[in-house]
Amino acid sequence: MKLNLNADLGESFGAWRMGDDEALLPIVDSANIACGFHAGDPRVMRHTVRAAIAAHTSLGAHPAYPDLHGFGRRPMQMAPHELEAAIIYQLGALAGMARAEGGTLTHVKPHGALNNQACEDAALAACVARAIVAFDRDLILLAPACSALVAAGEAAGLLVASEIFADRAYTTAGALVSRSEPGAVLDNPAVCIDHVRRMLDAGGIVAASGTVLPTPIHSICVHGDSADAVDTARALREALEADGHVLAILPDVV
Amino acid sequence: MKLNLNADLGESFGAWRMGDDEALLPIVDSANIACGFHAGDPRVMRHTVRAAIAAHTSLGAHPAYPDLHGFGRRPMQMAPHELEAAIIYQLGALAGMARAEGGTLTHVKPHGALNNQACEDAALAACVARAIVAFDRDLILLAPACSALVAAGEAAGLLVASEIFADRAYTTAGALVSRSEPGAVLDNPAVCIDHVRRMLDAGGIVAASGTVLPTPIHSICVHGDSADAVDTARALREALEADGHVLAILPDVV
Amino acid sequence: MKLNLNADLGESFGAWRMGDDEALLPIVDSANIACGFHAGDPRVMRHTVRAAIAAHTSLGAHPAYPDLHGFGRRPMQMAPHELEAAIIYQLGALAGMARAEGGTLTHVKPHGALNNQACEDAALAACVARAIVAFDRDLILLAPACSALVAAGEAAGLLVASEIFADRAYTTAGALVSRSEPGAVLDNPAVCIDHVRRMLDAGGIVAASGTVLPTPIHSICVHGDSADAVDTARALREALEADGHVLAILPDVV
Amino acid sequence: MKLNLNADLGESFGAWRMGDDEALLPIVDSANIACGFHAGDPRVMRHTVRAAIAAHTSLGAHPAYPDLHGFGRRPMQMAPHELEAAIIYQLGALAGMARAEGGTLTHVKPHGALNNQACEDAALAACVARAIVAFDRDLILLAPACSALVAAGEAAGLLVASEIFADRAYTTAGALVSRSEPGAVLDNPAVCIDHVRRMLDAGGIVAASGTVLPTPIHSICVHGDSADAVDTARALREALEADGHVLAILPDVV
Repeated sequence: MKLNLNADLGESFGAWRMGDDEALLPIVDSANIACGFHAGDPRVMRHTVRAAIAAHTSLGAHPAYPDLHGFGRRPMQMAPHELEAAIIYQLGALAGMARAEGGTLTHVKPHGALNNQACEDAALAACVARAIVAFDRDLILLAPACSALVAAGEAAGLLVASEIFADRAYTTAGALVSRSEPGAVLDNPAVCIDHVRRMLDAGGIVAASGTVLPTPIHSICVHGDSADAVDTARALREALEADGHVLAILPDVV
Repeated sequence: MKLNLNADLGESFGAWRMGDDEALLPIVDSANIACGFHAGDPRVMRHTVRAAIAAHTSLGAHPAYPDLHGFGRRPMQMAPHELEAAIIYQLGALAGMARAEGGTLTHVKPHGALNNQACEDAALAACVARAIVAFDRDLILLAPACSALVAAGEAAGLLVASEIFADRAYTTAGALVSRSEPGAVLDNPAVCIDHVRRMLDAGGIVAASGTVLPTPIHSICVHGDSADAVDTARALREALEADGHVLAILPDVV
Repeated sequence: MKLNLNADLGESFGAWRMGDDEALLPIVDSANIACGFHAGDPRVMRHTVRAAIAAHTSLGAHPAYPDLHGFGRRPMQMAPHELEAAIIYQLGALAGMARAEGGTLTHVKPHGALNNQACEDAALAACVARAIVAFDRDLILLAPACSALVAAGEAAGLLVASEIFADRAYTTAGALVSRSEPGAVLDNPAVCIDHVRRMLDAGGIVAASGTVLPTPIHSICVHGDSADAVDTARALREALEADGHVLAILPDVV
Repeated sequence: MKLNLNADLGESFGAWRMGDDEALLPIVDSANIACGFHAGDPRVMRHTVRAAIAAHTSLGAHPAYPDLHGFGRRPMQMAPHELEAAIIYQLGALAGMARAEGGTLTHVKPHGALNNQACEDAALAACVARAIVAFDRDLILLAPACSALVAAGEAAGLLVASEIFADRAYTTAGALVSRSEPGAVLDNPAVCIDHVRRMLDAGGIVAASGTVLPTPIHSICVHGDSADAVDTARALREALEADGHVLAILPDVV
């Protein structure tokens, strides 16, 4: 059975660096690349696209609210036609960078507050899906399993890949437990791997309460914002391969 | 003989409006559309692309230095790889908007200080040409006649369209007379039309001194920043058609 | 009895112009000057401060969310300490400009979505008040009458000036009727003047339903975004003076 | 004899961190604090001001060109009145933050390309000096020794502090050897300390050629962009104190 590991990459900006992309690229199968609105200036984007192509990592756009200062993590309220255009703009910019480097964009994963809000808000999720369809209806939408964003993508006729998080606990409703709650973030690699294995075995999200929400699982999101995170990602990959999973780029999984 | 009229469009931003695009669109054949770096937010870009397609105006990207505050008119010094990536980013973003609206990008014209500097500086001009080639070598480069930018585009293997300005006087070297000089800007429609006719007849730029610099002339740049400018553009179009010129989109002229 | 007319000024940005400040300045007593976050670059701010000082108009800061693209009208969610710092930054910048021109900042009026949200949200209103107190506790807070912002300002020990809108209908709760409702905006000068007179006579906000919410009224907000708006503002000033009101700068009214 | 150590601080932005301010603050006497144009958002500015006050470090503004993307290192050409207003804006914003934290701004040091260009260009240097005089003529201008900026500050009637760089070689003309030349940057702490001692002994800049350009030396600029840089700064401080110099805040040195 094929599975995918994805991570957010290319989140440096100008003179500022973030994350260890070099360490993470050989570990993940698909890269969500910042498009300049929350991180990632054009030079960083081009560099990241080039490195991802060299690593045989598939290329995804990681569009966000226009908010460098807040790293795209601050909830905003944009008019739907404003947001739709802002997403198309970012998809085009990253697709252009991919084209300049001889690669192709194959998926889209919204970033930060845009992603979080689109998981809860059906109208916003539909707006995101509309933008992708308008730009290229063959792009895969990578979205948190069981979210309104998955539903919106499917309703719009997009291929949707459902992702789970290796290091986050889930509520009974299938949402991430808020970071302010105890136990929300799993920081032990063995615990993360166990968490993922239980969800793959159960064929669904396993909430902290033990409740299972059945869902296809196409991809697992990992992080590279610390040396520990990179180690966890590497250990997870090895564990999944040892379990017999074939790790592959998103277009081969969906 | 085929000729083209081009103008800068889509230079509003957010709540601020600039230019009278509605009045200008039916007059020009090709639109240079701002890409968000000096003007033109994503919504404005999408709206402009849609309007241009409806008017059968061909679509060009109008990339600029990243300088909303200075409207892209302030000379900057960017490292060549930074600038190249910044141009690809803008081409991609506008091409994405065109794609979302069912249109196609067919030309590129640098904006403001980037254009001015690339007309004088061969290394900068080569950087602009490299960015276009990297993104799409089939795009036409629209550049001021007799400039270093024309030479760089041709050297890079691009189709190049040479443009003249209806309302600007030229130096003996073929550059625009600086706006700070008397007589630099021609503001009478009849004088503008006469200026263009003399250059078309001469087959070259006619400097204020009377010197002629032979050059192909594919396109004439007009402006829409005032009601007078729109009237001049309209009168010029009518005059050229009366003279027997066939006005056409850029891909039909080069 | 002293009254004040206030208006938002200095909302041009770079090459883009907005509003007719020259026409409005002689009509109003106090100016709310954009601080660069939603509009108003440093040059525009300096020019506006200079013009306001020349017109004997008192100077207020008009801080906003950091959102040029959305003109500060898009609701955002900033962490309180982020927002507090962002407001202090803007107050400092405008106070610096006032100092450079020999003037003094005397009031603060939040702009757009920040103002709207602070009128409803006591925690946000307290954050705005804290920022003002931290920067200069002698500044007057200019806030919509009967709002949570008035309450927060008073609780923080600030002098608060309550304003009403000449051209907007009110709900029974004292909020502005949403612009999407019929009758929300009063566009006839005579109707606006009558609306203001009734509120001054009643000593409170007069809702569309006729309900009166008692409140001190220190200032009336007028607009300059169209020639009609300027005419209405002028007519209102003349009517108030004819009624015997003495129109004065904010520090003389509170 | 009194001397000062200064460093650039507060150059983080949003989610991105830069430099080790915590390590550097106890070592330096005066902080040049980014003002939001090349780095330093309002929250970072407030935090830096607070930390500097706690460390008894004197507060300076570090104004820059408006260029987050290029970290203020890209040469730009702004109209003098634009630049003057942009500097006043930044001085006001940082002074406001200082006021909110109970501190006072005592000096100004231009950043990056603005500083470099003002060291060579008398008109630009005069523009910087004008901005400071307009905002507060009691502020000290901290400028590279022997530069056009020193001359402009003195001509404008400002107190000027001349600084030398511990880790940079000088040309015979008193300018920094370009980083692209071999030997431009001194990276051995002992070499840096020796470099500084020779200049203090000589009472002037000692060029790589051995030529001495006499100049008062009020301050030495150190860096905190790496652990090595912090170690060098600490070693320099200890060496200077061992030599009998009294290290003090800028207002006590000029």
